[in-house]
Amino acid sequence: MPRYKLIIEYDGTDFFGWQRQKEQISVQEVLEEAIFKFSGERVQVFASGRTDSGVHALGQVASMDLEKDFPAHKVREAINFHIRPAKVAVLDAELVDDDFHARFSATERSYLYRIINRRAHLVLDHNKAWFVPQKLDIRAMHDAAQILVGVHDFTSFRAKDCQAKSPVKSINRISVTQQGEEIRIELSARSFLYHQVRNITGSLKRVGMGKWTKEDLKRVLEAKDRSQAGEMAPAWGLYFVSVGFDPLSEDDVAHNPTVGKEPTVQ
Amino acid sequence: MPRYKLIIEYDGTDFFGWQRQKEQISVQEVLEEAIFKFSGERVQVFASGRTDSGVHALGQVASMDLEKDFPAHKVREAINFHIRPAKVAVLDAELVDDDFHARFSATERSYLYRIINRRAHLVLDHNKAWFVPQKLDIRAMHDAAQILVGVHDFTSFRAKDCQAKSPVKSINRISVTQQGEEIRIELSARSFLYHQVRNITGSLKRVGMGKWTKEDLKRVLEAKDRSQAGEMAPAWGLYFVSVGFDPLSEDDVAHNPTVGKEPTVQ
Repeated sequence: MPRYKLIIEYDGTDFFGWQRQKEQISVQEVLEEAIFKFSGERVQVFASGRTDSGVHALGQVASMDLEKDFPAHKVREAINFHIRPAKVAVLDAELVDDDFHARFSATERSYLYRIINRRAHLVLDHNKAWFVPQKLDIRAMHDAAQILVGVHDFTSFRAKDCQAKSPVKSINRISVTQQGEEIRIELSARSFLYHQVRNITGSLKRVGMGKWTKEDLKRVLEAKDRSQAGEMAPAWGLYFVSVGFDPLSEDDVAHNPTVGKEPTVQ
Repeated sequence: MPRYKLIIEYDGTDFFGWQRQKEQISVQEVLEEAIFKFSGERVQVFASGRTDSGVHALGQVASMDLEKDFPAHKVREAINFHIRPAKVAVLDAELVDDDFHARFSATERSYLYRIINRRAHLVLDHNKAWFVPQKLDIRAMHDAAQILVGVHDFTSFRAKDCQAKSPVKSINRISVTQQGEEIRIELSARSFLYHQVRNITGSLKRVGMGKWTKEDLKRVLEAKDRSQAGEMAPAWGLYFVSVGFDPLSEDDVAHNPTVGKEPTVQ
């Protein structure tokens, strides 16, 4: 029974998120329907990260099994043929070992949050970035963000209905950069708490506006209290960029409290 | 009677081009309606370049006169307030001299053509770039494009219904560059013939696919025959990027056959 790894791009605007639901259209559903159309098989597709309504993906990863043995490029082409006009595309497909699982084998998830910082409302980036008209200090945002790197209790940046067992996560990297009117916040971690990236972004915006210093952000982190953090940034600025699958050594596992088979949702 | 210069971004997808028409919605019409809503004045807005249906603008320039004297930033804010949800935004507005005219004062127009070169259909760039799945040789495209720089008779790249008096134009610069899966063709000229940029792009794609050499492109240019050139690239990959207004010296005018008050349409 061959197992396939898919790399997937989608525009989250028209979907109620990744996960299949009864009444609403999801990315998972249109993918599973497209797979059924070419293979005749009812499969379940597992994602590395379950994105929320409106959140986009440049490189979501999914895994699934088929009974029949199709060449990987045929799987990619057939899904792309049947999935249109839904705004989902399989960028790449490959055959993988039976022990690969998009969710449980993932060792790093990377997200991008796009802010457009200008006076005029968004046109070409409508639904594709957060419109922030107030002038932001990018250097202050990047500098403060480094407070969050490493292992911390992220209760202050965690959604009320987050189902993770522990609020402790390890952020590998955060960078805040600017290209013209676009501000890009890039974050990588083994996994994130529910709404963690959007809650961090809202707080970094406060720093950028000069309402908070780096020390204020540190105090918010240490408060372990969601009501202390900034507003949650909107879904449409968030992109699930890529997933890493580097096997960790025993030693890594022993010393990293966030290693585990915990889900990640944004 | 104050004259205003506006810098305008729009998503061309929902419009039948820049120019006002009886039955179809145009960028000019939604702008003029928004101006009427805040000023009560029926004005005509002149653009530096009249883009076709589906063509986008990052920095279209327009000029218009009002009877009343509004501060420029109020004009920008008021148009942006009233124009929504149309996908048009005034990025900047300024008061200019009476002899400024967006079309007749323009001395350089710059366009960008975006190609996404990959196997999977477009999702996040749907209607925002040309999807070309065949592998393209970017260096060959850039190299061949240099044939077109300078003063030439561009009959081979001119639309049948082009209304310019002369097919002779002077292209200042063409570059073809790649960033990941995106190929960017950037062109600057005082003015362009109707569909010139899209016809050039279609021919450069032929070069990129290895169907034409640089010499073939030269032969096509010299043939002065539209039927010799490649297919016209689609509207949705084209962006009107910016307009230059550097006053030319008498000397420039005397030596440049393309200097004149000729319209430009893409």
